Amino acid sequence: MTDQGHPFGSDHPIGVAVLGMGNVGTEVVRIIQEQSQDLRQRVGAPLVLRGVAVRRLDVDRGIDPELLTTDARALVNREDVDLVVEVMGGIDPARELIGTALTAGKSVVTANKALLADYTGELAAAAEHSRADLYFEAAVAGAIPVVRPLIQSLSGDRVNRVVGIVNGTTNFILSAMDETGADYSATLAEATRLGYAEADPTADVEGFDAAAKAAILASLAFHTRVTAADVYREGISRITSEDLETAAAVGCTVKLLAICERVPASPGEPGSAQGGKDRISVRVYPALIPRKHPLSSVSGAFNAVVVEAENAGRLMFYGQGAGGAPTASAVMGDLVMAARNKFFGGRAPGESVYAELPIAPIGDTPTRYHVNLKVADRTGVLQAVAGEFAQHGVSISTVRQEGQDEGARLVVVTHHATESALADTVAALAELESVTSVTSVVRLEGTEE
Amino acid sequence: MTDQGHPFGSDHPIGVAVLGMGNVGTEVVRIIQEQSQDLRQRVGAPLVLRGVAVRRLDVDRGIDPELLTTDARALVNREDVDLVVEVMGGIDPARELIGTALTAGKSVVTANKALLADYTGELAAAAEHSRADLYFEAAVAGAIPVVRPLIQSLSGDRVNRVVGIVNGTTNFILSAMDETGADYSATLAEATRLGYAEADPTADVEGFDAAAKAAILASLAFHTRVTAADVYREGISRITSEDLETAAAVGCTVKLLAICERVPASPGEPGSAQGGKDRISVRVYPALIPRKHPLSSVSGAFNAVVVEAENAGRLMFYGQGAGGAPTASAVMGDLVMAARNKFFGGRAPGESVYAELPIAPIGDTPTRYHVNLKVADRTGVLQAVAGEFAQHGVSISTVRQEGQDEGARLVVVTHHATESALADTVAALAELESVTSVTSVVRLEGTEE
Repeated sequence: MTDQGHPFGSDHPIGVAVLGMGNVGTEVVRIIQEQSQDLRQRVGAPLVLRGVAVRRLDVDRGIDPELLTTDARALVNREDVDLVVEVMGGIDPARELIGTALTAGKSVVTANKALLADYTGELAAAAEHSRADLYFEAAVAGAIPVVRPLIQSLSGDRVNRVVGIVNGTTNFILSAMDETGADYSATLAEATRLGYAEADPTADVEGFDAAAKAAILASLAFHTRVTAADVYREGISRITSEDLETAAAVGCTVKLLAICERVPASPGEPGSAQGGKDRISVRVYPALIPRKHPLSSVSGAFNAVVVEAENAGRLMFYGQGAGGAPTASAVMGDLVMAARNKFFGGRAPGESVYAELPIAPIGDTPTRYHVNLKVADRTGVLQAVAGEFAQHGVSISTVRQEGQDEGARLVVVTHHATESALADTVAALAELESVTSVTSVVRLEGTEE
Repeated sequence: MTDQGHPFGSDHPIGVAVLGMGNVGTEVVRIIQEQSQDLRQRVGAPLVLRGVAVRRLDVDRGIDPELLTTDARALVNREDVDLVVEVMGGIDPARELIGTALTAGKSVVTANKALLADYTGELAAAAEHSRADLYFEAAVAGAIPVVRPLIQSLSGDRVNRVVGIVNGTTNFILSAMDETGADYSATLAEATRLGYAEADPTADVEGFDAAAKAAILASLAFHTRVTAADVYREGISRITSEDLETAAAVGCTVKLLAICERVPASPGEPGSAQGGKDRISVRVYPALIPRKHPLSSVSGAFNAVVVEAENAGRLMFYGQGAGGAPTASAVMGDLVMAARNKFFGGRAPGESVYAELPIAPIGDTPTRYHVNLKVADRTGVLQAVAGEFAQHGVSISTVRQEGQDEGARLVVVTHHATESALADTVAALAELESVTSVTSVVRLEGTEE
């Protein structure tokens, strides 16, 4: 039943500590208690909840109060705790508690994307040193298995791109704006009312949450440590109903995308310090995508991640990206696997960062722009505008001009160019006399060319 | 670097034998040779190809002929072979070779769905006994990670349903028929010409391939051993262009679906031998699905699997279900994980069949029917037809009647009823004087009700 005389067995349970009892923690505790028979069969030994660390004891949480404690550190350090589930969120004290657990050889399952985006290196080293496991499927895309597929299923392949909708709040808002034509503020208010946005929605709407997830995905995809600071980030707070309208006019919708992309080394760059290594571009921003792109039909609070790999080709993973039960599903999968490792003596793969690919600055990233200009309605405007694009080496794909009450609206869609060339073009356009204002600049992704 | 004084290390390679060098085997060999540096980093030790077993030595396969052998058994038994990749297909001699490898403690990675659908129990027992791993991601849905997510990622959840498009040949044919209006024979001929169908397409078009995959998926989803014999199977060879046309008229397309479903125990069945256990329904048949169902947009040779679990909710996995490189991607992911286990002393989860849920006979399965009747064009026909449905307790959802050159066409879509009630109704309809013929009966799946 057990290997190497391991102490665990059908009569010796595996002790679990849960840190945090918010939406996810509540579900994790419920599942551990309600599914104990199934879990015992799947682990090979009983999983026993030793305690749950919470902030306040005076709240009735529907479980035996004896299980609750405000002393998370003491709970983690208990001798009868073998596995720790961290679903409290935040950097401190989660970072220290996870470090303590791992250093003591206790495996950790976490959903903490913000912590992992910046501290995976340190935590993975602690895990490696003590031969404990660090699992974090729940940190990215809720219920959807994407971390394990990237680490394990694609371990024999070469990933070239990962593009995802990984934040439910912003996807709910943008989907609703697309469907209803409502403006951003009204839709954010509705999202808050319905519980899809928090009282302070900054982390979601400004793309911080998506950027943390992008850092994690990029690290896994490219075997390189990528932190939140490496991710170029723009949120959705400047997206307007007009953006959704002009997007629809070119057969697109607007989504907040996390994009992790291998930028191949240019051949024959003499004296290149990188020695011909591929680079990694990691960015989060709202972008137009064609309606026929699989990500365009991902609506509401659903998430999806598209992975493109050398041999596998294109893969897509879709499901609920947030919520107590969906996230708990991912936590429980990791918990069972971590428990099995304790029982059978196995080890999860540790951090793999051997490739050490350099991060490509956003300026070098090839992308397309959708530029909405308010212009004077007279001859020569198009020539002036087109001239600026040409001068910066940016090729134009389509132009649409519509008269308006005052002046005209000019919508330009470019071909691929570097961010820096496009940014310079936009700056120059703003200076043109015939351009009243640059109403909006939104990137365009997911097109074939 | 290694645990427990394990012999593998950066100077002691892990030996791999590949059995078979068809489309998939060729790609596996290529990847092992071309990606050796990356693989070494990811495994922790070099992966060295010891040999490749083929049927004929007189074919130039583009690799060192010294690697080729027709003696698969001798190759498997080599002392310097630690891992075996079986991509030869077929039951014999694959079954014996895999058994030999596992019994000798050598881990096996296989893509052999037909073998696994019937012999997983025997092979898993050999693996368990010798503490070797048996991995088979490549057996279902090509490049798409679905086996590992079901076994590992969802190990803490409760799966209720798995529905998939898992055969590229039939999906290509049905997608083409839907797009072009062409008939089955012409489309099959085109599929053969393009390489999507084999010279003898029986295994694909009659649903045997999909049924083997359904057995594997059901076993994993419900922790119960399900074999191919447990799977109700119908192929697509009787689907006509008229079926696609009438499907479109009700907002549907037609797909060959593999459906694995938990049928909840009816409460309070006194004297029930099952003691209130859930049952499993596993079936493969062509079915109408609504165009808004995520599976309806899976076209050509792509595959997709939708998993519904208690906590995760609905998940979808999508990608290339067949082809040399995509399938090799899945093989390589398993190979790296198996090699890591050899290196680090871990173990893959073995077969989990503790639930032992009974198989529900097809007659008990609740489904909906789309019935296309050729009828006499006179009064009283609808009453007679409706009467048969009512008599068998089958509720009608919609009826459409169209006059034709001779007689009329009557298309009935039912609500949910058991297969046996529906089958009895159809038999009775065929006997009606006013029914000239039952042109077609196709099930309808994926609707909300």
